[in-house]
Amino acid sequence: MQNTFGNIFKVTTFGESHGRALGCVIDGCPAGLDLCIEDIEKELARRRPGKEHGSRDEKDMPEILSGIYEGKTLGTPIGIVVYNTNQESKDYNDLKDVYRPGHADYSWDAKFGIRDHRGGGRSSGRETLSRVAAGAVAKKILSLHKMEITTMFDAPNIEKLREEKDSAGGIITCRVTGVPAGLGEPVFDKLDARLAGAIVSIGACKGIEFGAGFASAQSKGSENNDRPKEFPNGFEFETNNAGGILGGISTGQEIIFRAAFKPTPSIGKKQRAFAKDGSVKEMEIKGRHDYCIVPRAAIVVEAMTALVLADFLLLSRLTRI
Amino acid sequence: MQNTFGNIFKVTTFGESHGRALGCVIDGCPAGLDLCIEDIEKELARRRPGKEHGSRDEKDMPEILSGIYEGKTLGTPIGIVVYNTNQESKDYNDLKDVYRPGHADYSWDAKFGIRDHRGGGRSSGRETLSRVAAGAVAKKILSLHKMEITTMFDAPNIEKLREEKDSAGGIITCRVTGVPAGLGEPVFDKLDARLAGAIVSIGACKGIEFGAGFASAQSKGSENNDRPKEFPNGFEFETNNAGGILGGISTGQEIIFRAAFKPTPSIGKKQRAFAKDGSVKEMEIKGRHDYCIVPRAAIVVEAMTALVLADFLLLSRLTRI
Amino acid sequence: MQNTFGNIFKVTTFGESHGRALGCVIDGCPAGLDLCIEDIEKELARRRPGKEHGSRDEKDMPEILSGIYEGKTLGTPIGIVVYNTNQESKDYNDLKDVYRPGHADYSWDAKFGIRDHRGGGRSSGRETLSRVAAGAVAKKILSLHKMEITTMFDAPNIEKLREEKDSAGGIITCRVTGVPAGLGEPVFDKLDARLAGAIVSIGACKGIEFGAGFASAQSKGSENNDRPKEFPNGFEFETNNAGGILGGISTGQEIIFRAAFKPTPSIGKKQRAFAKDGSVKEMEIKGRHDYCIVPRAAIVVEAMTALVLADFLLLSRLTRI
Amino acid sequence: MQNTFGNIFKVTTFGESHGRALGCVIDGCPAGLDLCIEDIEKELARRRPGKEHGSRDEKDMPEILSGIYEGKTLGTPIGIVVYNTNQESKDYNDLKDVYRPGHADYSWDAKFGIRDHRGGGRSSGRETLSRVAAGAVAKKILSLHKMEITTMFDAPNIEKLREEKDSAGGIITCRVTGVPAGLGEPVFDKLDARLAGAIVSIGACKGIEFGAGFASAQSKGSENNDRPKEFPNGFEFETNNAGGILGGISTGQEIIFRAAFKPTPSIGKKQRAFAKDGSVKEMEIKGRHDYCIVPRAAIVVEAMTALVLADFLLLSRLTRI
Repeated sequence: MQNTFGNIFKVTTFGESHGRALGCVIDGCPAGLDLCIEDIEKELARRRPGKEHGSRDEKDMPEILSGIYEGKTLGTPIGIVVYNTNQESKDYNDLKDVYRPGHADYSWDAKFGIRDHRGGGRSSGRETLSRVAAGAVAKKILSLHKMEITTMFDAPNIEKLREEKDSAGGIITCRVTGVPAGLGEPVFDKLDARLAGAIVSIGACKGIEFGAGFASAQSKGSENNDRPKEFPNGFEFETNNAGGILGGISTGQEIIFRAAFKPTPSIGKKQRAFAKDGSVKEMEIKGRHDYCIVPRAAIVVEAMTALVLADFLLLSRLTRI
Repeated sequence: MQNTFGNIFKVTTFGESHGRALGCVIDGCPAGLDLCIEDIEKELARRRPGKEHGSRDEKDMPEILSGIYEGKTLGTPIGIVVYNTNQESKDYNDLKDVYRPGHADYSWDAKFGIRDHRGGGRSSGRETLSRVAAGAVAKKILSLHKMEITTMFDAPNIEKLREEKDSAGGIITCRVTGVPAGLGEPVFDKLDARLAGAIVSIGACKGIEFGAGFASAQSKGSENNDRPKEFPNGFEFETNNAGGILGGISTGQEIIFRAAFKPTPSIGKKQRAFAKDGSVKEMEIKGRHDYCIVPRAAIVVEAMTALVLADFLLLSRLTRI
Repeated sequence: MQNTFGNIFKVTTFGESHGRALGCVIDGCPAGLDLCIEDIEKELARRRPGKEHGSRDEKDMPEILSGIYEGKTLGTPIGIVVYNTNQESKDYNDLKDVYRPGHADYSWDAKFGIRDHRGGGRSSGRETLSRVAAGAVAKKILSLHKMEITTMFDAPNIEKLREEKDSAGGIITCRVTGVPAGLGEPVFDKLDARLAGAIVSIGACKGIEFGAGFASAQSKGSENNDRPKEFPNGFEFETNNAGGILGGISTGQEIIFRAAFKPTPSIGKKQRAFAKDGSVKEMEIKGRHDYCIVPRAAIVVEAMTALVLADFLLLSRLTRI
Repeated sequence: MQNTFGNIFKVTTFGESHGRALGCVIDGCPAGLDLCIEDIEKELARRRPGKEHGSRDEKDMPEILSGIYEGKTLGTPIGIVVYNTNQESKDYNDLKDVYRPGHADYSWDAKFGIRDHRGGGRSSGRETLSRVAAGAVAKKILSLHKMEITTMFDAPNIEKLREEKDSAGGIITCRVTGVPAGLGEPVFDKLDARLAGAIVSIGACKGIEFGAGFASAQSKGSENNDRPKEFPNGFEFETNNAGGILGGISTGQEIIFRAAFKPTPSIGKKQRAFAKDGSVKEMEIKGRHDYCIVPRAAIVVEAMTALVLADFLLLSRLTRI
């Protein structure tokens, strides 16, 4: 359940890692937006792993099924599908009755009582493909408003991890420029609250902070309050401890947040793991996996950020009479 | 807009700090739950400031308007109202056209173009009263399932801050015991994603992390994966780096997260601030404010956590055929 | 559950007939709308029964709890409450364990297993008070767009029914003028579909038809298609068999629909009824009841129509890029 | 917008008549339900026109893209797609700038300002294919509860209409047996309200009535109240004027409603029609169209009824603590 994201610009995703296809339906994209398949291909290509990542590599050719006519959106649902072509399900035969450490295997089984274990099923990172496809459409809306999302991260020595049969996590910093003041809702749907929910919904994300974040908890009010520039040109501030958001509403400053991602739980090293019957086994995970998910997760962070902002941009049309 | 929280156990809140009343309507609470006014009074009393906090103090007497009959919920909406009795609106006359640093004043005006400046209007911390009232009902549901929420925090020297006319932030750690494995949804409504959205929606919250959180970003997979106990009694682990959640679904371990709160932006010290016309002024904030919001925010963190968990508990009835 | 109506202009209602109060929270009303208590009182007064109706009569004094400042909406939730003052619960003592024919008593018990039998609880016609209060706010929005809703109905000889201790139903015709072309959504949220759902949700409504309605089922396409006027001034038609809606979207013609209401099930005449234990009893209903609900239902029809149209008016801001 | 139907069992549809494909995503189907492609093919085949209908005929081969593993639902979204293979778009070239009488052409253009005119785009009857596919899944859930939906209708002389180049409407009667008492929600989401919204959302539906319907408006309370059987076996009644629903909640009696469908607006006869520029033209519609949509609409009525009932069946799990 709950596979729809957004209040106005609504995205419903579907698909398992080794099923027939993945995709999404975007409902709520206004009519008249220029959109073509290349817009989506471009973002999916950025998400695609290089050979050095060690992970499953396939072309991920998206197809737009509906909602577009002569290069423009119709205001009807945009269906997008990507067929799976390179799944190697036999790699997962050994994992049918073992719960891989750090994965959703056990919690999933406890919840549903039935599980497509191949490639992680719907809890696979491959699920994010649908998010990136939808995010590509959201970015088109943001670009009309001159909003731009960028991400940065620190990459560990990949070569070394591969030798060690281990994995690494990392921190992604995301910045958004061009955000008008006034986006976000005052109480439950604060802009930062929605971003927090969106980013933490990306698999392996274990935390998020805005502006000065955790450091602000150690500071004083007199230090943490951003103060007006001495000679401001509009509402400009000397610092941006707020991360561009006050009271859940954008201030017009740059939005900044940092998200923590844990190391990929799939590692080649021997590990102890629970089997379905409660016994403990030794296991080595084969399959194809990223040594570090962070570079690809950054693209997903951008996509989710775009979805949240496009949603609030549209919602802001409803604010005043 | 967007003043409803929850998918199944839905809470809609209303109210401004200096308006007639605050309150909430809970829609989706099952019929037959024992509930009385004391259940709500008890939680509101915990949220109420002591005199030492420096903030507005009033009785906050809740009234249940509907949804209860002979001590049990009817399955109909539970309306709860708390009338404002101790607002001192004249304290805010000077603030009508000045944007207090670190507050929602400017971003609110940019959004709505109209603002009840008295006591912060709807962006006041007083808004959380409705959350706590609703959380009290959610806790009743959790207690039927033996789930318990506790919070801890580090309190700064308050006395000293008062002298300095300054304020402090802090970090709240929240733990939930008794959570069954299987709560949370696999993609957008991951349990941690929903908690992140819920907690960051509390005013002044600037970050959240689950389990090992930001530290896990620096660790290796072989270290970060929680491993089975040598001689487990059920699915028990040596560590809890996951914070009790894998793939967005509870594992049955304790849920642990930490939330960072910035210092109260209202301080007595002189500050530079923007006026509505874009000019910069010096100001000192009077009114009644908490030197450190953290002890009271902890009660709100509990309430929001309870709302999320009650929602997922009910949702879990729909998982299997 | 499901006590919220609307997608953008969202109304959540609460309250039992003999509980403490009824009311609603309107979330999604844009900021800057002129609104005062008299706007709501005026509509509630129209809904109030005259003495000739035979039904419970009370002042129904609404109070606005939030969302208004200096005569304008703030863009925050508008809480409205009406306290019950004239309930006479002892009239219902005899009905605790009997299911009144034609009422929700049995189906309610089958559903919830617990019931506030006094005055019908939440299934009372008194519940519509909250709809009318919310509709008053929606009408303010429509009036900015020069849209006007009117209702007509045929009233039976009331005097005679009172003597017979019986009741009557009737048909309400509703017209809306000034509706711009383009309101309504193409598939599930067709304008007529939403109106149908809204109107049939009024207690005692047993049917609805749009334009030529059931008669169109007997006609031919060549007769039923509305044809352009010979010398049109804009998109004008000779007939309005469509009732102002084609493909679920308003055409700019007058919207016309007719709703059928069954006779009030509460009658003074002797009736056979099921008791809770499955036995059959003879009963006479006392209490205070309308002999014919139709004149008051017409006000509720207007309110629900206003809620639907205000919702679509706001939604239409999102249609184009 | 608004292309999702249902609160728990949620169906999002997409697709234009002459686009690449149509389909749906079902989110909220519980895990563990037996489901195979034949279940969907079977219902789609019932909706498929016979040659005598005169309308576009194609195989409509559905493909399940996700949500199924080894013949059972996973509890994840079920994506279903049907590619268009037999569209003849050139038939519609003449219609690009003319608004067909009785169709959504004009109102659509007024709304969106952009339109895929080929085959009616998204306002085509072909859109109902997605509803029938989703309804097939809902029916599987109902069948577990021994609930059964049947429809009846009166068919006009088709042969004659074809000669006349005209079309006919009709009335569909729908009955549901095996419905447990207690489905439906008391206020806005009454079972009949939801059915009314669902059925009127089917293109060409102009009215709906439940049980005695419009006739009940002319009766007296003493006649219209269904009375207990003299020697009942459980809660049995002599009549079913209520149509199996009281106060919006099912009574356990058979559910009965009648829906009116207008004649197909596409006719071969000469008609006057508006062109996009406001001028009036004579036109004859070619293309392939049903002379009477009623037999195929009946399948869609069943599908929508199944979606509503499956939704309420699941929702009923949340009623009691």
